[in-house]
Amino acid sequence: MADFIHERHKPPSGLERPRELIVACVPLRSNINLSRIVRVASCSGVSKIIACGTAKVISKIARDGADAIEIEVHRTLPPVLKELKREGYQLVGLEQTTRSENLHIFQFERKTVLVVGNERSGLTEDLLALLDQVVEIPVYGLPYSYNVATAATMALYEYCRQFPRG
Amino acid sequence: MADFIHERHKPPSGLERPRELIVACVPLRSNINLSRIVRVASCSGVSKIIACGTAKVISKIARDGADAIEIEVHRTLPPVLKELKREGYQLVGLEQTTRSENLHIFQFERKTVLVVGNERSGLTEDLLALLDQVVEIPVYGLPYSYNVATAATMALYEYCRQFPRG
Repeated sequence: MADFIHERHKPPSGLERPRELIVACVPLRSNINLSRIVRVASCSGVSKIIACGTAKVISKIARDGADAIEIEVHRTLPPVLKELKREGYQLVGLEQTTRSENLHIFQFERKTVLVVGNERSGLTEDLLALLDQVVEIPVYGLPYSYNVATAATMALYEYCRQFPRG
Repeated sequence: MADFIHERHKPPSGLERPRELIVACVPLRSNINLSRIVRVASCSGVSKIIACGTAKVISKIARDGADAIEIEVHRTLPPVLKELKREGYQLVGLEQTTRSENLHIFQFERKTVLVVGNERSGLTEDLLALLDQVVEIPVYGLPYSYNVATAATMALYEYCRQFPRG
């Protein structure tokens, strides 16, 4: 069996078409979490992030993702989500609710807006009312909740697994 | 269609048996990254983390995961990895190498040690030589590399997806 040889700078995986996946974040408490989401979204080939209010991306955390990805800042999410819904995007929230589907088995539509809630309050009622689907991630141990950027990472991974070529 | 009603404190998902998944980290540059890995591993039901050297878990980041999960500190990884291999664990590294398999399609064995490399240097040759398998995660955009805790998060998610009940 041949050895595993470290390859530091492999070429990235190609997409056959631009990803039709947008990440929309409510106002987050922590710009660190936002910046971590920017990095993983950019690495995942997401073309646009929608952030709110005084959101500020920390480039030391987001790295080149901070410049590579379009970051659109809005005062609040509902108007832009309504517009994206009119454009044919499925609005998928990430939250524990009475009717959330398990991310492990959820089938994404290609044209998706992943809506990410606040670290403490999650997704508020007015946002939940706009969503087409809500997904949640099984949690097995303490502290019984994933960090917001960790949860977003899992959802982005699952989307890319389903659409490895865009 | 009924509304999505926020549920803050859902009971965790049950495991039919304890997870036979261990996370082993080389000495990391950042205790923040280690602590993020501790939180997501604990939430994923992992029972043990192996860390190295002066590793220190920051409880503000790891939350209750810091106490819920067993953290075993060793001077170096090779001896403990060799012992775990003798106990029947498959050693799976997370690294870009010439022979890495794509995490999207990799089939984990239940009894797995996930070996996580350093933020800068990744997994060194002496460690790669011990591994049974190496997996990598497709990357589509800048900065063309996932943060170490982000990559570990994706691997833990994929393992849990394959073994949702332990």
